[in-house]
Amino acid sequence: MDQPQRVVIIGGGFAGLTCVRALRGLPLTIQLVDRRNFHLFQPLLYQVASGSLSPGDISAPLRSVLRHQKNVQVLMGEVTGFDAARRRVVLADGELDYDILIVAAGAESHYFGNHDWEQFAPGLKTIEEATEIRRRIFEAFEHAEREPDEAMRRAWLRFVVVGAGPTGVELAGAISEIARDTLRDDFRTIRPEEAEILLLEGEPRVLPPFPPDLSDLAERALIGLGVRSRTGVRVTHIDASGVVMNTPEGEQRIDAHTVLWAAGVRANPLGRLLAEAFGAETDRGGRVMVNPDLTVPDQRNVFVIGDLAHVRDAAGKPLPGVAPVAMQQGRYVARNLKARLEGVAAGDFHYVDKGSLATIGRNAAVADFGRIHVDGFVAWLAWLFIHLLYVVGFRNRLLVALQWGFQYLTFNRGARLITGVVQPVRPDARPELSTARGGPGPATPSD
Amino acid sequence: MDQPQRVVIIGGGFAGLTCVRALRGLPLTIQLVDRRNFHLFQPLLYQVASGSLSPGDISAPLRSVLRHQKNVQVLMGEVTGFDAARRRVVLADGELDYDILIVAAGAESHYFGNHDWEQFAPGLKTIEEATEIRRRIFEAFEHAEREPDEAMRRAWLRFVVVGAGPTGVELAGAISEIARDTLRDDFRTIRPEEAEILLLEGEPRVLPPFPPDLSDLAERALIGLGVRSRTGVRVTHIDASGVVMNTPEGEQRIDAHTVLWAAGVRANPLGRLLAEAFGAETDRGGRVMVNPDLTVPDQRNVFVIGDLAHVRDAAGKPLPGVAPVAMQQGRYVARNLKARLEGVAAGDFHYVDKGSLATIGRNAAVADFGRIHVDGFVAWLAWLFIHLLYVVGFRNRLLVALQWGFQYLTFNRGARLITGVVQPVRPDARPELSTARGGPGPATPSD
Repeated sequence: MDQPQRVVIIGGGFAGLTCVRALRGLPLTIQLVDRRNFHLFQPLLYQVASGSLSPGDISAPLRSVLRHQKNVQVLMGEVTGFDAARRRVVLADGELDYDILIVAAGAESHYFGNHDWEQFAPGLKTIEEATEIRRRIFEAFEHAEREPDEAMRRAWLRFVVVGAGPTGVELAGAISEIARDTLRDDFRTIRPEEAEILLLEGEPRVLPPFPPDLSDLAERALIGLGVRSRTGVRVTHIDASGVVMNTPEGEQRIDAHTVLWAAGVRANPLGRLLAEAFGAETDRGGRVMVNPDLTVPDQRNVFVIGDLAHVRDAAGKPLPGVAPVAMQQGRYVARNLKARLEGVAAGDFHYVDKGSLATIGRNAAVADFGRIHVDGFVAWLAWLFIHLLYVVGFRNRLLVALQWGFQYLTFNRGARLITGVVQPVRPDARPELSTARGGPGPATPSD
Repeated sequence: MDQPQRVVIIGGGFAGLTCVRALRGLPLTIQLVDRRNFHLFQPLLYQVASGSLSPGDISAPLRSVLRHQKNVQVLMGEVTGFDAARRRVVLADGELDYDILIVAAGAESHYFGNHDWEQFAPGLKTIEEATEIRRRIFEAFEHAEREPDEAMRRAWLRFVVVGAGPTGVELAGAISEIARDTLRDDFRTIRPEEAEILLLEGEPRVLPPFPPDLSDLAERALIGLGVRSRTGVRVTHIDASGVVMNTPEGEQRIDAHTVLWAAGVRANPLGRLLAEAFGAETDRGGRVMVNPDLTVPDQRNVFVIGDLAHVRDAAGKPLPGVAPVAMQQGRYVARNLKARLEGVAAGDFHYVDKGSLATIGRNAAVADFGRIHVDGFVAWLAWLFIHLLYVVGFRNRLLVALQWGFQYLTFNRGARLITGVVQPVRPDARPELSTARGGPGPATPSD
């Protein structure tokens, strides 16, 4: 091998970035391609959506993370296809040759064919979606403050989260804390703590991936936060003013101006392109079916890892789309390539499940460590510790810790900016309407 | 006076917010209207544009700042006009009655009639403009990294800042630091420190509002940072690929993909609407000419303050559009209203000039304290201290201090996200182009 092998890695998420870092020092020529210039710490994205952290706090520029790893070039680019015969990755504006291809393009929100729901119920996969959700949550209270009609005001103060997996539970809990604590004294016409937060789930219990006893504990914690969950219901329609769902008692409509989507993800469309190019299969969610060594069948030099890969554990259960799986797969592929360079055989990938955590709110979380189930303050501390530990980069870790500390003590949220397209707060209002004298109550000099 | 007087304040910037806070405890019914839900610490906006701080770090939610001041209601809304006869402020979606009106709507970027320049050379007045500028700066290096053509690459690495006032000087200095320090080891094809930064100014020297000796010192500091300034030139054309300027030697074109606008501001268009409604005059920049007590002529109950007001000092020179002027005017109007409530006469507004500061970069700034002129490290420390002191809210102050500390020690910038519309990095590239083997240099196992 005279020339170092060319490795192209697509995606700088947990799988791709972990893989690149584990390839440190190897005689390879690595190109890491990502649409974005930063790694995003997705498990904390809901904290951007709820105004606790700034986008910069949970992002690390890929170039900065990899600046001293000389065998890597970071490229910002959009992959549009694969040329299997010529071993090339096709970009929107160029091509990349590879000897080894590692695809870790991740997942996106999935609306099960109802594309028009996206505009009414944004999902939570990107920084832009997070700031959009933040805008909708905080703007809803602004609308309510200025809405004279009682029913309309209630619809502005009603928040529906579709999907009670970890993300949905986190979002619902965070909205409750915003309403009850953060905004408590901020308004003069409305009482933010009267906001209704509804969590809708198709399965018979919240946090379906967790054991039933932890679902129960989570449900209880949610009730304590004032979140009402409806399980066993199926959303059949979403528009600008609410949601229709199928319940055991029949069809039911909920009037709500803020609907958030946490009901499902599917693989990045690159999965299907890759499958077509290399003759692989995909599952219903668009994930690529891979060999036990994470290569595509009959393609020794093409790996798929992270949320884009369909991999099963020893019991035949598909691995979940979570960061630990992605990181272990990234490290495994690096070990595999190292073994190849050394001319030895690499074993198959085996996921070591160290447990699952879901946070519900202040001092409340559930943790599933196999036989040990933990909830409440202890689980919440574990969640805090693990997430701080993994936030990329020392600087971010300290910033995040500091902001959490402030928020814990003051209940305030520092990053609750309404940004993006600025629209009239009440576009539906009649222009002749006057809020004259409808302002603050009689002022007292004693404020 | 049975009913408390209704005060409507338009704008939650330095003038409006300072005024509201100074009205604390008075028997008034105050409504503060702003298009945004946050106060923006504009003097640090260039640090968002250059990736040092996150938008949340320099913003404070207006509701949060004013939550305990019970005589104020904060309203998010867009003012569209004034009904002088009925004493009403017209919003896009309602109306507000007032007894006293205080207008502090601020300023915006001014392109002197060349509206089409805005898309090619964004100004720096809003959070969205700051993140757009950030995107352009950091994306330019990404483009350059993947650009095979030498001349094109140079155009991506050339940054033009139009206007060498404090904002232009700060931006130029920050871009230089990005190129020389922050990105130093981040690229494999380009050398970021080869970026050219050009600062164009129509006046014969940089920092025209400062005394000539400080302009000289600033010019020298800029040269030390590798910023080339061209004074006495007039920009006559801007497009997607560069700038044309009139110089004493004739017309000259600069090929540059990143052009930033810091050449001028004008009053918010509300100034003209207000002038029409109340029969006032405006100056060339759209600022409202006001009485020495900051009221509109013949309108005892209508005040204009901040960047929207045209006020002259004792020597007849118009006051600059800076935060200290705005804050002093806000406090003055509050004192004036208090005097009215007490039935005593209020004097006229007098600006107390405590000095001016402009920062150029790491350890470099100039300060004009009247007879005392300071530059270098001491001026920079003064700048640091004063800006930390005034960043609204204890939490933000600590966050900003922490991030500055990290950046000072590590040269890294934590908030350099490219967000917003994600476009191909090289939309102009030919699709058949291949960067194969053009990637990283030969890898060494010694990274």
